[in-house]
Amino acid sequence: MSKRIEPRTLKGFRDYLPDAMMARERLINTARGVYRSYGFSPIDTPALEYLEILTGKGGEETDKQIYRFQDSGDRWVGLRFDLTVPLARFAAQHIAELGTPFKRYHIASVWRGENTQRGRYREFMQCDFDTIGTRSPAADIETALVIHDLLRAIGFERFTLRINNRLVLNGLLDRLGLAEKSKAVLIALDKLAKIGREKVADEMARTAGATPEQVNEVLRLAELAGENQEILRKLEPMVAGSAAGQEGVARLAELLAAVEAAGVPCERVRLDVSIARGLDYYTGAIFETFLDELPGIGSVCSGGRYDRLASLYTNQELPGVGASLGLDRLLAAMEELGMLAKVTTPAEVFIAYFVADRLHDYLRLAAHLRAAGIGVELYPEPKRLGQQLKYADRRGFRVALIAGEDELAAGTCQVKDLASGNSQTVGLAGGDSAVLAAVNAILASRL
Amino acid sequence: MSKRIEPRTLKGFRDYLPDAMMARERLINTARGVYRSYGFSPIDTPALEYLEILTGKGGEETDKQIYRFQDSGDRWVGLRFDLTVPLARFAAQHIAELGTPFKRYHIASVWRGENTQRGRYREFMQCDFDTIGTRSPAADIETALVIHDLLRAIGFERFTLRINNRLVLNGLLDRLGLAEKSKAVLIALDKLAKIGREKVADEMARTAGATPEQVNEVLRLAELAGENQEILRKLEPMVAGSAAGQEGVARLAELLAAVEAAGVPCERVRLDVSIARGLDYYTGAIFETFLDELPGIGSVCSGGRYDRLASLYTNQELPGVGASLGLDRLLAAMEELGMLAKVTTPAEVFIAYFVADRLHDYLRLAAHLRAAGIGVELYPEPKRLGQQLKYADRRGFRVALIAGEDELAAGTCQVKDLASGNSQTVGLAGGDSAVLAAVNAILASRL
Repeated sequence: MSKRIEPRTLKGFRDYLPDAMMARERLINTARGVYRSYGFSPIDTPALEYLEILTGKGGEETDKQIYRFQDSGDRWVGLRFDLTVPLARFAAQHIAELGTPFKRYHIASVWRGENTQRGRYREFMQCDFDTIGTRSPAADIETALVIHDLLRAIGFERFTLRINNRLVLNGLLDRLGLAEKSKAVLIALDKLAKIGREKVADEMARTAGATPEQVNEVLRLAELAGENQEILRKLEPMVAGSAAGQEGVARLAELLAAVEAAGVPCERVRLDVSIARGLDYYTGAIFETFLDELPGIGSVCSGGRYDRLASLYTNQELPGVGASLGLDRLLAAMEELGMLAKVTTPAEVFIAYFVADRLHDYLRLAAHLRAAGIGVELYPEPKRLGQQLKYADRRGFRVALIAGEDELAAGTCQVKDLASGNSQTVGLAGGDSAVLAAVNAILASRL
Repeated sequence: MSKRIEPRTLKGFRDYLPDAMMARERLINTARGVYRSYGFSPIDTPALEYLEILTGKGGEETDKQIYRFQDSGDRWVGLRFDLTVPLARFAAQHIAELGTPFKRYHIASVWRGENTQRGRYREFMQCDFDTIGTRSPAADIETALVIHDLLRAIGFERFTLRINNRLVLNGLLDRLGLAEKSKAVLIALDKLAKIGREKVADEMARTAGATPEQVNEVLRLAELAGENQEILRKLEPMVAGSAAGQEGVARLAELLAAVEAAGVPCERVRLDVSIARGLDYYTGAIFETFLDELPGIGSVCSGGRYDRLASLYTNQELPGVGASLGLDRLLAAMEELGMLAKVTTPAEVFIAYFVADRLHDYLRLAAHLRAAGIGVELYPEPKRLGQQLKYADRRGFRVALIAGEDELAAGTCQVKDLASGNSQTVGLAGGDSAVLAAVNAILASRL
């Protein structure tokens, strides 16, 4: 025997045990159903890409976090750190074959060598959907509708979709003659919530050379509050004379009207001119989604419009719009809100393996129930019944079927409701239809 | 603009475009459903593990194929090359918390730096299920039933599950006094189909020091053919006097009887003493599954019993039994057999965006159909109708809804069956219930 190796996961990584994994599978299935209901198709891309595909896309901080190495053919490769860069590469490579509009979803793991002290994991799942190849406002509207339907389908009622349009700020900077400095202004503005008004103003003066009047105008825009229509009215004069700014305001108005027409309650959508999301990437609509009961966890579904997706890989114009559901963040929120049903077994019915030489009877019974669409676990060993029922209890089965020597001789079986403890004796003749009926009655009683 | 980067995937890796990915998702869903119906729960483990966890488990060849590197904390890490080694590590780490029997499935990507000239990919999905913590024959039987149900649920009728038990050969070697040389005998025997009887005999004589009589006995065993019961009868004298061999034969007999009792047609299960599967790993039952129409592609679902799963990581005994569905091989087979339905859109209904300023009407219609469980894609731009219908045709929608200025003014909509080309005009009043009925009639007509 060689020396023992300590069984452990890498720092920053984790195993998913059945409970956590079942919740994740359920959430993914829900997302997939919503994406598909809008005509988004699944794709997948390799976990490993040429390093040159990945670097320089997400900024210096992201570059540092990429898991990178030379493979056995001395190629520099990296593990993907998001699903957007692979989408850009994928679109540049395949769009001629696929045609536009191209609507895809992609649910897969990504890896980042993050600082684990912040409670972050180095491997996590992303769950993205995007529409590529159209600049139409209808695609922006649909993105908002998908986000709304996703949250509803997962089971949330109280959430707020915050929307903005990058063109609005661009328009103001245009009017103020600060268009060339937009990056510096955005970097400073992004810190508003963290460092406050005064320090942001200092930074804008320093890095963008903004005058106090200019700083004032920018902050006045970012701090606009109130009803959606009220904000829209206030925005109009602020971007007057800038075509981009006017288009931004018009698109926001259009988006608000359309999502309401499609049935989204108006209190769930809020115009928020302060959200910016990243610095260089987005060029139009921006979306963030907050749970009203847990605003502190941040946005659980974010995205927006970008018009230069694949420009590093192709000279074809590939505008797009989409968003990403934060699976892990959502799961944590659902746990905190008590929304994760405690289910520990994917099968609902437990069959005790009672009499050692009657295995065939138990196998037949299990097969009949499965053929009727009911999940059944047969205990693998003819152990003491008490031990088996303890296992059944711990695993969270809803029904136990128990047939000892006497029952089998009489052609019957006990059907036990594990929640109430009630038990009834049912005949096994006639293709187990009486057992099936009794099981279904118990399962239906607690739905 | 920085210089352009060529959009390409790494050698040995591939993208999944929507058609391929939809087929893969469907297959995975089917497998998941079958696993769950037997009470298997999902788990997941990290793609990256400490290198010491991975090496030395799958033999020298596998070790060479592991993607390995030092992470930014100078830890040596590797990408998992299968799901069995992570299961062993996982079980050693968590089994005290989870208890036994522990039944899990795991569907995830693995990576191997294989020689791509053999048409192999360096990233592929595995789809495993295992029962840990019991030596009971009932768990072996269940493994065979799961494999059978899997193939049936995927849509196969003509396939053969080949079973063997490692104890049978061990028993013979025991009787022949070759028990100590079993590894050398197995290595030679494994080549029988490839290099033929004579060369295998030479090798056994050379590496295991087997006499011609011993070689003869071993080959006679491996070449046993005929009906299952006939083989069982012939095996008995060959293992006489060896407790292990007799147990192997008894377990095979028990397995055959039980799967038949559970409803598996007997022609789908065949005792095949020649299958060995790997060298050191399996200790009992062995399973392989072949498609009758495509035997050349090899086994599509293989596995068996192993009794020393986690011995490298823990001194707790963790016997197990399970199998792995070969997703990629199965998908290739299904394509060859014409079993992959040509579906190019996950949504079935297409709504043309006909009149530019009537977007709200189209959005409302789409929302109503989705609320009724029907997938709907709305074209994102008010382009020429011909162009939109060409897109709808290419994507494989089944129904198109077309409402121009005249229809909308009259409160109606055209419902077009895209297969037959037939079109009918339906009223939009009353919550779109007439449209819903017309759409459902078309969808039902082609199921």
